Amino acid sequence: MKNPVIGQMKNVKPSTQSLPEMVAEQINQLIIDRQLKKGDKLPTEVELIQQLNVSRGSVREAVKLLVARNVLVIQRGVGTFIADDTGIVEDPFGFAYMDAWERLVWELMALREHLAPWIAGLAATLATPEDTDELPLWQRKVEDDIRSGVDHITDDQGFHTCIAKCTQNRVLPMLIPVITYSIRLFVKVTHGALGQETIETHARIVDAIEAHDSERASAEMLEHLRFNRELLSSAIAAEKKTIG
Amino acid sequence: MKNPVIGQMKNVKPSTQSLPEMVAEQINQLIIDRQLKKGDKLPTEVELIQQLNVSRGSVREAVKLLVARNVLVIQRGVGTFIADDTGIVEDPFGFAYMDAWERLVWELMALREHLAPWIAGLAATLATPEDTDELPLWQRKVEDDIRSGVDHITDDQGFHTCIAKCTQNRVLPMLIPVITYSIRLFVKVTHGALGQETIETHARIVDAIEAHDSERASAEMLEHLRFNRELLSSAIAAEKKTIG
Repeated sequence: MKNPVIGQMKNVKPSTQSLPEMVAEQINQLIIDRQLKKGDKLPTEVELIQQLNVSRGSVREAVKLLVARNVLVIQRGVGTFIADDTGIVEDPFGFAYMDAWERLVWELMALREHLAPWIAGLAATLATPEDTDELPLWQRKVEDDIRSGVDHITDDQGFHTCIAKCTQNRVLPMLIPVITYSIRLFVKVTHGALGQETIETHARIVDAIEAHDSERASAEMLEHLRFNRELLSSAIAAEKKTIG
Repeated sequence: MKNPVIGQMKNVKPSTQSLPEMVAEQINQLIIDRQLKKGDKLPTEVELIQQLNVSRGSVREAVKLLVARNVLVIQRGVGTFIADDTGIVEDPFGFAYMDAWERLVWELMALREHLAPWIAGLAATLATPEDTDELPLWQRKVEDDIRSGVDHITDDQGFHTCIAKCTQNRVLPMLIPVITYSIRLFVKVTHGALGQETIETHARIVDAIEAHDSERASAEMLEHLRFNRELLSSAIAAEKKTIG
């Protein structure tokens, strides 16, 4: 069955569209109709010009738009391809542009406390053998980072994304960068203090998921976040003291 | 205090950046440093060229990138401004490009069932008098749409976003378009059937929030979603039958 959403999306934003914007939408539709997936090659410029009956300039501008939105990637001299994580942008909710970011930290923490224990519980119930093979690898990466004094934020995100993948729900892993966004704000301040606790709690979370113990996985994640919350509180207090 | 995230974001995606991409990041930093908000005017092209020490072409390409990401809007002959909902894109997780969209519908429904009753409960606890003044207006809009046979999807989203705003958590309203995305898929099929039930449940949800009754607001939302789930099931079944 064809995804019928694209056509309907037009109703959402009835604003005046520029020509490149309209051509971008046509290319979008073409990607979806032909079911092009990440790594697939986009038809050539010449083919797009003929197919969509538009000028070369419009096609170029439209492609740039889609590159900016991580739908396409250009490989010089090779061609234009469908991007990995098609259409997913780095900061999808524009957190970087929000004011009152200290408030944002707590808003995200509240969301994370509601989502992460639930996700951990689902992960314990639904993890496949492949999932439980992969999870300890991420756990070890984070542990190695911490023990060797390297920034573990990226691997930590990988760890929590891996847990979210255990749920078999493709949307939940997408939320991990969103709900852990606030951590980046304070990584430098909390880095040392979080280390030992993170190693221990991660191990207990992995153990519970491997044992398919949903309640314990949830409880361990909640405990982990409680510690995070406390640390974040004191980190923010310290930050304020430093800045004055 | 300055939002310290932008600088750190560079660590996330250490890929080879194009020149316009790097200039876009500099303009980003300038927006954040100067705390420019939606509707504010971006410095002129000439000022940006001098300030960032780059060519006119690079600035133009960078601005296009930021327009594509809904950070900037260009008003012909007037200037370039900070966009409303700065940096928030229409389909932030690229759902339109995902395969197995029927599976996506259920993945989103699971997330919605976990989030929406919680949000409704928080809304009942934390709604201000201004919030409870606004909520019935949205309720009435949806009701009018349904009674006059007009598509009520956009107003329905406004209604649920208004509930999320009652929580005073700025992140939760951003999640509404995400968790209600799947509804668009089936609006035509479910349109008629949902009408009367939607009018009645919305009224009960508003009543519970106005009464600041958190438990009842949660329960009514859950009930609403149960009905949605059933209807979605039969709509998908019908869709399959039609397509064959």
